[in-house]
Amino acid sequence: MTAPLRVAIAGLGTVGGHVCALLEKNRTLLEQRAERPVQLVGICARNKKKARPFTRTTIPWFSDPCAMIDETNCDVAVELIGGEDGIARTFVEHALNKKCSVVTANKALLAKHGKHLFPLAEKQGCALAFEAAVGGGIPIIKSLRESLSGNHIYRITAILNGTCNYILSQMRAQRRSFQDVLEEAQRLGYAEADPSVDIDGFDAAHKLALLAALAWGTLDIDSLTIDGIRTITAEDMALSEKMGYRLKHIAQAYPAKTTIHQSVQTCLVRQDHALAHVDGVFNAVTFLSDFCGELTLIGLGAGGDATASAVVSDILDLARGSHEHPSRVVLTATPTFPQARIPTTETMPYYVRLHVDDRPGVLAEIATTLAHEHISIETAWQQATEQNDVATLVIITHPSPSPSMHKAFAAVGTLKPVRQAPCLLPIINA
Amino acid sequence: MTAPLRVAIAGLGTVGGHVCALLEKNRTLLEQRAERPVQLVGICARNKKKARPFTRTTIPWFSDPCAMIDETNCDVAVELIGGEDGIARTFVEHALNKKCSVVTANKALLAKHGKHLFPLAEKQGCALAFEAAVGGGIPIIKSLRESLSGNHIYRITAILNGTCNYILSQMRAQRRSFQDVLEEAQRLGYAEADPSVDIDGFDAAHKLALLAALAWGTLDIDSLTIDGIRTITAEDMALSEKMGYRLKHIAQAYPAKTTIHQSVQTCLVRQDHALAHVDGVFNAVTFLSDFCGELTLIGLGAGGDATASAVVSDILDLARGSHEHPSRVVLTATPTFPQARIPTTETMPYYVRLHVDDRPGVLAEIATTLAHEHISIETAWQQATEQNDVATLVIITHPSPSPSMHKAFAAVGTLKPVRQAPCLLPIINA
Repeated sequence: MTAPLRVAIAGLGTVGGHVCALLEKNRTLLEQRAERPVQLVGICARNKKKARPFTRTTIPWFSDPCAMIDETNCDVAVELIGGEDGIARTFVEHALNKKCSVVTANKALLAKHGKHLFPLAEKQGCALAFEAAVGGGIPIIKSLRESLSGNHIYRITAILNGTCNYILSQMRAQRRSFQDVLEEAQRLGYAEADPSVDIDGFDAAHKLALLAALAWGTLDIDSLTIDGIRTITAEDMALSEKMGYRLKHIAQAYPAKTTIHQSVQTCLVRQDHALAHVDGVFNAVTFLSDFCGELTLIGLGAGGDATASAVVSDILDLARGSHEHPSRVVLTATPTFPQARIPTTETMPYYVRLHVDDRPGVLAEIATTLAHEHISIETAWQQATEQNDVATLVIITHPSPSPSMHKAFAAVGTLKPVRQAPCLLPIINA
Repeated sequence: MTAPLRVAIAGLGTVGGHVCALLEKNRTLLEQRAERPVQLVGICARNKKKARPFTRTTIPWFSDPCAMIDETNCDVAVELIGGEDGIARTFVEHALNKKCSVVTANKALLAKHGKHLFPLAEKQGCALAFEAAVGGGIPIIKSLRESLSGNHIYRITAILNGTCNYILSQMRAQRRSFQDVLEEAQRLGYAEADPSVDIDGFDAAHKLALLAALAWGTLDIDSLTIDGIRTITAEDMALSEKMGYRLKHIAQAYPAKTTIHQSVQTCLVRQDHALAHVDGVFNAVTFLSDFCGELTLIGLGAGGDATASAVVSDILDLARGSHEHPSRVVLTATPTFPQARIPTTETMPYYVRLHVDDRPGVLAEIATTLAHEHISIETAWQQATEQNDVATLVIITHPSPSPSMHKAFAAVGTLKPVRQAPCLLPIINA
């Protein structure tokens, strides 16, 4: 039997607590699978008195995370503190500088400082593993960098934020408003008191930036188009469903002409697409690649247990010595484009929903305005509303370039028969 | 730059040809990701003159696969010959005896001889990698043994045979008969001239046995219940759909009281289950585990390109030196049961379809016969047929133990009002 793998954990919130519980509960299994014991040599959190889901009486407690690394002589430092700067960053840098491998679930930290941290890990010959940072328990990172390692990645399409997906799923299933469901989600603990990081798309953006870094060697959070789910109404939810789609908060990235297109935004997804049926707190990703074709992974994107499973899979890889190439995030000055990528026309169909004066000639006026920007209509559907003189008009366009579509939509919004708060949403191709 | 990884490939059929094509086409990418060149030092197949999808003029050709291993001094021997015995077995054993790592897509060989081959690989300190053996391009093996390594596996539910899934999907979409779709599939090359291995469930059984070995340490193909799709009719396809289900050929395994339950058979799947929407040549697997919860992977289960992607992922793992624990298949004398597994009641609901005399009292007679075996009815649905005096009767039972259900079904079949060819199919719980 090889010597135990010495693990120290900083941060004992939901994820940290469940990692300790997993290490305790499945100790025998882990030892069998790693062919060596996995030993918790130190834990560290702010509040020593808080109740935790594991027995911690025998585990040395530290109040200073960096001192924990120095004093325990650990092999692996697990960062579950969170936050894109502050103690989390100090802790990770300290570990790597001490040639101690790091396992983290911190997408914000890696998305912001990965350009510095990944090369540091390489230089020090340490692992910087982060399976738990994207998609909770789903093996998204391992699948992308190991299972698809022989492939050029053409496109990544994903549902990466459980809060957004939960809210949109509830809005659909129960025909309720965004605000109503958000408040319930906050009461149930599915949404934070300050929900902005989730519902405005930043969390999904951090995760997508990491996937793009693995796929194409570029880590560029600043170039990401970020939008959330605040403006989605129950009406648009119902109308898009009537047209054969589901509304999902979609993270998508693909190599465009000279750059990597990266966006997170609410999109319409065809009802026969695998992602259309991913509901509640589940996350999912679809990779399109040259040899493997379409590969979809679906699982619990958050929660202590599932995320702990991912953290422990990284720890076990280290126990087995399987992190030969430490970070496996190869950042390049210029992105690695597929040599023979699919033709990205950079056009997509759009959903346009308007409230308009219910009188003859209005549809013609709108169609003419769209045609000025060469936007052509695939389907138009109009229905009277409870307000006598107002109709709801839904247009599905043919695939159109984003700039033309936004220009046309702005122009339509200024037309006299068009009432307030029109809605424009893309329909994903994949 | 490390020395090249020397790879020799035996078998240049669909998969072998596409592996060579991938190694050629994505050479630069592979070298970048492995941080060393992957060099094809030998190929071997029966027919030297056949057209292949890659440039082979510069690659040494061998007519004897074992001689290829001896003469090329390869690091990795790739077995793509196929067959559960014969040359494939000789080649794999020869490679392992020469301390050469093996990558194979051969589920039949491993299911039959794994009990001998996995320990041999361990003893020799070689890898015996087989990602391509189960689920084509889907990273099922890696996810189970690496990503879920911290988890007790409660249940595996999967669609593992592309031919079965293609035929069932076409029967549903086009309302056609089994025989009709099978003949078309044979013309299109989706089914073999002798389709038995696929449509009678043996291929799926081999794959499921390997997954059970990874999950619970027992490799026991003989204890598997194996059934196929030959008896499925267009009528049952339509009726099950009317009741809210899809018919799928399902491989399922879970720890029961004293053994591992393993079965492949056509089942009804709820329409809101992720596997219900996996159509055509796609495969999928859902793992249920203690910490990760429900994890579903969906992708191309067959085809040269996708399977080549999986073969190459194993080769790249070896190039990176990530096969520390060679086979990672730990076979134990007694299965490793989850300590706290979900209560497996070993009951499931059933679908019973009968053609019966269309007269009063028939349903009562059938219900009474079922009740004798304590089978209770959840839903019963009856419809007149084109034949004046015959009705179709569909019963969905409450969850029932398999032995009672089969006994009751046999008894119902002997009742006077019940016409020929009644149908009994399980409804999966997961």
